[in-house]
Amino acid sequence: MKKLVLTGAAGRLGSYLREPLAKMCDTLVSTDIVDDIGTLYDGETYAKGDLASLDDMMRVLEGADMVVHMGAYADEGPFEKLLGPNFVGAYNIWEAAYQRGLKRVVYGSSIHAVGMHPKTDFIDTEVRHRPDTFYGLAKCFAEDLGSMYWDKRGLESVHMRILSCAQVTNARALGSWLSYDDLIQLTQRSIETPVTGFSVVYGVSNNDRAPVDNSKASFLGYRPKDNAEQFADKILAETGPLDSQDKGHMCHGGPFASVELGNSGVATMNIVDDTKKI
Amino acid sequence: MKKLVLTGAAGRLGSYLREPLAKMCDTLVSTDIVDDIGTLYDGETYAKGDLASLDDMMRVLEGADMVVHMGAYADEGPFEKLLGPNFVGAYNIWEAAYQRGLKRVVYGSSIHAVGMHPKTDFIDTEVRHRPDTFYGLAKCFAEDLGSMYWDKRGLESVHMRILSCAQVTNARALGSWLSYDDLIQLTQRSIETPVTGFSVVYGVSNNDRAPVDNSKASFLGYRPKDNAEQFADKILAETGPLDSQDKGHMCHGGPFASVELGNSGVATMNIVDDTKKI
Amino acid sequence: MKKLVLTGAAGRLGSYLREPLAKMCDTLVSTDIVDDIGTLYDGETYAKGDLASLDDMMRVLEGADMVVHMGAYADEGPFEKLLGPNFVGAYNIWEAAYQRGLKRVVYGSSIHAVGMHPKTDFIDTEVRHRPDTFYGLAKCFAEDLGSMYWDKRGLESVHMRILSCAQVTNARALGSWLSYDDLIQLTQRSIETPVTGFSVVYGVSNNDRAPVDNSKASFLGYRPKDNAEQFADKILAETGPLDSQDKGHMCHGGPFASVELGNSGVATMNIVDDTKKI
Amino acid sequence: MKKLVLTGAAGRLGSYLREPLAKMCDTLVSTDIVDDIGTLYDGETYAKGDLASLDDMMRVLEGADMVVHMGAYADEGPFEKLLGPNFVGAYNIWEAAYQRGLKRVVYGSSIHAVGMHPKTDFIDTEVRHRPDTFYGLAKCFAEDLGSMYWDKRGLESVHMRILSCAQVTNARALGSWLSYDDLIQLTQRSIETPVTGFSVVYGVSNNDRAPVDNSKASFLGYRPKDNAEQFADKILAETGPLDSQDKGHMCHGGPFASVELGNSGVATMNIVDDTKKI
Amino acid sequence: MKKLVLTGAAGRLGSYLREPLAKMCDTLVSTDIVDDIGTLYDGETYAKGDLASLDDMMRVLEGADMVVHMGAYADEGPFEKLLGPNFVGAYNIWEAAYQRGLKRVVYGSSIHAVGMHPKTDFIDTEVRHRPDTFYGLAKCFAEDLGSMYWDKRGLESVHMRILSCAQVTNARALGSWLSYDDLIQLTQRSIETPVTGFSVVYGVSNNDRAPVDNSKASFLGYRPKDNAEQFADKILAETGPLDSQDKGHMCHGGPFASVELGNSGVATMNIVDDTKKI
Amino acid sequence: MKKLVLTGAAGRLGSYLREPLAKMCDTLVSTDIVDDIGTLYDGETYAKGDLASLDDMMRVLEGADMVVHMGAYADEGPFEKLLGPNFVGAYNIWEAAYQRGLKRVVYGSSIHAVGMHPKTDFIDTEVRHRPDTFYGLAKCFAEDLGSMYWDKRGLESVHMRILSCAQVTNARALGSWLSYDDLIQLTQRSIETPVTGFSVVYGVSNNDRAPVDNSKASFLGYRPKDNAEQFADKILAETGPLDSQDKGHMCHGGPFASVELGNSGVATMNIVDDTKKI
Repeated sequence: MKKLVLTGAAGRLGSYLREPLAKMCDTLVSTDIVDDIGTLYDGETYAKGDLASLDDMMRVLEGADMVVHMGAYADEGPFEKLLGPNFVGAYNIWEAAYQRGLKRVVYGSSIHAVGMHPKTDFIDTEVRHRPDTFYGLAKCFAEDLGSMYWDKRGLESVHMRILSCAQVTNARALGSWLSYDDLIQLTQRSIETPVTGFSVVYGVSNNDRAPVDNSKASFLGYRPKDNAEQFADKILAETGPLDSQDKGHMCHGGPFASVELGNSGVATMNIVDDTKKI
Repeated sequence: MKKLVLTGAAGRLGSYLREPLAKMCDTLVSTDIVDDIGTLYDGETYAKGDLASLDDMMRVLEGADMVVHMGAYADEGPFEKLLGPNFVGAYNIWEAAYQRGLKRVVYGSSIHAVGMHPKTDFIDTEVRHRPDTFYGLAKCFAEDLGSMYWDKRGLESVHMRILSCAQVTNARALGSWLSYDDLIQLTQRSIETPVTGFSVVYGVSNNDRAPVDNSKASFLGYRPKDNAEQFADKILAETGPLDSQDKGHMCHGGPFASVELGNSGVATMNIVDDTKKI
Repeated sequence: MKKLVLTGAAGRLGSYLREPLAKMCDTLVSTDIVDDIGTLYDGETYAKGDLASLDDMMRVLEGADMVVHMGAYADEGPFEKLLGPNFVGAYNIWEAAYQRGLKRVVYGSSIHAVGMHPKTDFIDTEVRHRPDTFYGLAKCFAEDLGSMYWDKRGLESVHMRILSCAQVTNARALGSWLSYDDLIQLTQRSIETPVTGFSVVYGVSNNDRAPVDNSKASFLGYRPKDNAEQFADKILAETGPLDSQDKGHMCHGGPFASVELGNSGVATMNIVDDTKKI
Repeated sequence: MKKLVLTGAAGRLGSYLREPLAKMCDTLVSTDIVDDIGTLYDGETYAKGDLASLDDMMRVLEGADMVVHMGAYADEGPFEKLLGPNFVGAYNIWEAAYQRGLKRVVYGSSIHAVGMHPKTDFIDTEVRHRPDTFYGLAKCFAEDLGSMYWDKRGLESVHMRILSCAQVTNARALGSWLSYDDLIQLTQRSIETPVTGFSVVYGVSNNDRAPVDNSKASFLGYRPKDNAEQFADKILAETGPLDSQDKGHMCHGGPFASVELGNSGVATMNIVDDTKKI
Repeated sequence: MKKLVLTGAAGRLGSYLREPLAKMCDTLVSTDIVDDIGTLYDGETYAKGDLASLDDMMRVLEGADMVVHMGAYADEGPFEKLLGPNFVGAYNIWEAAYQRGLKRVVYGSSIHAVGMHPKTDFIDTEVRHRPDTFYGLAKCFAEDLGSMYWDKRGLESVHMRILSCAQVTNARALGSWLSYDDLIQLTQRSIETPVTGFSVVYGVSNNDRAPVDNSKASFLGYRPKDNAEQFADKILAETGPLDSQDKGHMCHGGPFASVELGNSGVATMNIVDDTKKI
Repeated sequence: MKKLVLTGAAGRLGSYLREPLAKMCDTLVSTDIVDDIGTLYDGETYAKGDLASLDDMMRVLEGADMVVHMGAYADEGPFEKLLGPNFVGAYNIWEAAYQRGLKRVVYGSSIHAVGMHPKTDFIDTEVRHRPDTFYGLAKCFAEDLGSMYWDKRGLESVHMRILSCAQVTNARALGSWLSYDDLIQLTQRSIETPVTGFSVVYGVSNNDRAPVDNSKASFLGYRPKDNAEQFADKILAETGPLDSQDKGHMCHGGPFASVELGNSGVATMNIVDDTKKI
């Protein structure tokens, strides 16, 4: 692998991926909309760019082999707010990747593309889209885009539907947790697998209570190592009785399944930044 | 039914729906981006509006019970060209419908949302999205949008995936043809069925060679009457041997499955305007 | 066919089956708990008996080839009320049929065995049980009983899940209607088919809006002739907007899906006795 | 269609196909192992050849567009007896068709490729092979062969799994009957459909009691017209009680499901030659 | 968890659950039909009661959060013998739980609800009921009851289909064994999982030869630790050739699949009481 | 187990199975077409025989309990070359096994029976046949043969579809590798499982990237221990970019999926003989 591009490099998940990705290639081009992402790793360069600008993405992807596309507005918000970075941004990445001759897009998709399925359904990677938010709807859009670029133009893509990659602070996360180490393994597998076509895989750790089915993506060789069960006693002791009629508890999307469309859903998800210290 | 709205009323399919819809309600509000759609039917009024403007759609949908949403750029074209009318336009319709308290959106979706499935697969209405064009991608987007507004806000929608509603001029159309009478029946059923939730149904006539499976939408009671087999002898006699490796022949999307993304696909589809005379 | 037994012969559906069944065999033994069922048809005899008594059923089934088991408390009611006729009664029929060497039980089952499935799901005959009432629960019990007697003892059974066999007086019935003629055809097919093993089939007419899938029972050759669409214009004109969050409208069981367990559900179903005059 | 080849032209089904096939092409080359097949139809020529000889088949298929392959030893028999005509013969047809550049093989397959499935299972065209005889095993072989030549070499094939194409003389045939007219329609559709890839379709008439599922082959447009129900009253009146533990009654293969491997099964199937007079 | 109820506390499995359940709550109310269950654990009280009495169950469940329902006649027997404890008893538990406002019933169901499925079928938790005995039929009844109380009244239930929880003394048990530790884990998970709706899960250890599929219940987080393979060499050495036509060997229910209905099946199952010493 | 027969004892896989199989029975009869297979293990005898001769196989199988059938021409080649050993040879084994009263055939089948399925499809053991070569076609034939002998004659068989049992020298083998130890475990389980009926199981190690689904064969208790991931870093570092349009990379069959029919495919598969030293 000569040249790899990482979008959303200043974001929460992107920033964790910079170091391991830099080690996988000769040159890692990290990109985001901010001016500066701090000290660079060996082999890493930074290229500022706006996802909503096709010209920017054409410039950033020049000469690359693959792109890991993590950049997006990372919360539920009004459709108008997500239109540029999350919808048009995805189009720009795929179109630039095609025009620049990349082999593959590795995409940070989300459980929120299918978040309205009941949690008691063990959903696989071919279940129909049931987005829970505009945020999830943008993930659906990018998956369909990836399917089309593969079918029509032979551009591969792996869609990593991340469940919840943050500190385990509630009962849902006992099932949905994706540790940083497992995120890194999943991203690496998505890059190194020689052929992938159009693939979808859930980003979840080896939790006892993992509620989704990755069997159809077995060929990717993703075998998570971490298990949120280590937090179960503490979390369950703190959890009062939950209302089984509340979509926020009964659906895969969790709080996003019950949040009002267009409103921020992050606050209720207890996402904090010190996850790495776990 | 007191008030019904029809978008795309100046378009090819929209114009055929004006009369039958006008008969189904006290007031039909036809809307399109043109200044004038000619003589109005009894009970019909015309309201000019731009799909890409949420304000316009809020104005047009005020007081309505349901909206039949046929408006769109009706061909494959560059993503940037379809973004306004087909993507943002769909959002505006659903958002306005929700805010205005409508019960249901009846949507003119398309086979092109799943056009890359092989024709030898008898696809049902829950098969995963495989769009063949940006045009089809916009249909996927609207279907996912409809799913979300139903799950989150209780706004119903019926997504009529029309196969090909035009004169039968090639072998594919022997299977994919939707006659105007059957289009009208399907639209009526989608409106009059008391409860629909989120539903998808293929718009195809009762052709001997119909290649899609509507069984999961049986409760809608759509029973098409026309059959393209009446044109088979003539069409097959004119059809030379077809290349079974050509996606345009082997996929449900037909010419859209082989057209270059962003290029017009209509020319190759032999769509002509005198269908009604069939 | 020498001797056939009909239980519930004094009931609404049973009384319609007496004449056609009498024509299918040398002797029809009609049975019910009442003293008298009026004038008998040629070849018919009447034997009073209590379903809840195994002795009675042993007596009634003696020498018979098959039994058509329609007898039951025909409404939702408290569990204690249904325990005798509907639960124990079914056991008595199967046990007596086995001990008396009958070849088959033809059973009047009901959509209420699966009534909590959403109407937008096109349920087939192998869908899991989701009873909507104690009445439906008794149908589940009898189906499982029939499965066991076939697997363990080779006693065949056909379970006719009747949707609604009554005058068409509401929108649900446009899909769920079973005409008397089609009930008769279904019962005849269930009797005359040479081998059936354990089979389940929906009792519904050839309605445009029929919401259930009989394809897995195709070998029975049941091809209904009547179609409730003839009543659609009138019924739909009278039907106001329906609440799509109401289980009584969204589930296959109709009013039974929303009735309180143990309460009569018949009143809300507009079942009247003059159906035959339709 | 310029040139079509028909194998097994002297056989029972082949002889009925000669006339309609001759009308579909400029030249029909009929072939069989006998010296003479009687008076030829307009456009028909006869070429004697042995299926078990690749050289013969290379000669016969020269210049052809398609071949309708009906030739085989048409009964159950010892494996050694079927090896030449049914197994090696099928290989020779596909290999010669490939080498001679034909577009498609239309093959007379049989229900006996899946004859051990219980009749109460409504089997579709993708159900796994469960042959009931060496005769059926040869059909499995040819289907797998056709799958491979399509996947590897782009040679199309349609596998018509004929149920029972003979006079209706027993209860099984009420479901399994294929009339000659419907056989002809099916063969025509299999030839004229512009692209088919590798396809399987059941050859059965529009019988009320048809026990197999052709929905996955819908794109072929096969819509049978005849219905064995016209014979039901007579046949059922003559049919005594059948043993539901007998595989010959409970499996799709009928008598072939209970016949000893290697023994003739035809005698028990009441196949007579005057079917055309029905 | 403040108050938990355990039925069948004097039974074989119930007695093993008393101690671990007592540790999970402030008060464990153990109940059974005997006068006395011996020394009580910390936090445990005993309340004598008859499952067949709704009044008794209303009294016992008062103030409880959940009930673990293990009480039943624990063998195959005549229907009349099981009617009270196993059928009516299950109704009484669900009805009392509903009236007393409990959140959930955790139920000791059994493989015998689906015991007639062939062992070579890897059955999941949604496979259709195929009971092998009246004992299994009662389990089907309780599952359907649980489904209904969830759909109609929001009362949750987890149905633990136990395979064989006893010493490993025959070849079947190499696949079907549930160790006591795994039984305890499964019961704990069924209690502590915050929301479950209506769920079914197989009670089987992590045996190499486990023949059932728990994937659809993954969200419960049941991950068994024990493996009967430790007994394989000894057991297989003692096992003579088995008859593959014997339902007792070919079906999931084991000896119950071949026992005569109504007769005790336990003797043939080698169930002994010293399992804990394993 | 008194007497076991191993065919193909001189072949690559057969030679590894001789020792472990000799330990499982009183007498192991090894057979192959060569004169001599070297030093025999304790309890082993050698019987020369030709698979293509039914007489030979009748002689070799006399008195045996089971046969492990590994003998075949072990590469792709012309149909004529495989007809004797691979097709007729399989028939001879099953027929002789039946006539000699054996309980079971354990068969060395292959992924090449289904090799044309895309690798991104996680194929289970009931997926339809899609052979990639004549070699694979012979495996399909033997599987169908085994199905028939079970259904018609009660002769059991286990079909072990081996993926690639050789040194790991390319990226495909990271998923498809079957170690010798796991081959031995799989063969042992196939022999010792008391009842198997007709079963299919994939022969693949516990590789992170294993692309096939053995869940339906769970009752066999095959739990592979080895994992090709140990070779991943080295192999992936040596692997250049692969063409995702190449069937040899995109299909389960690997090189056999792209090799010309009838040509040797082994050269391209990097199979070497020193696997044991791994």
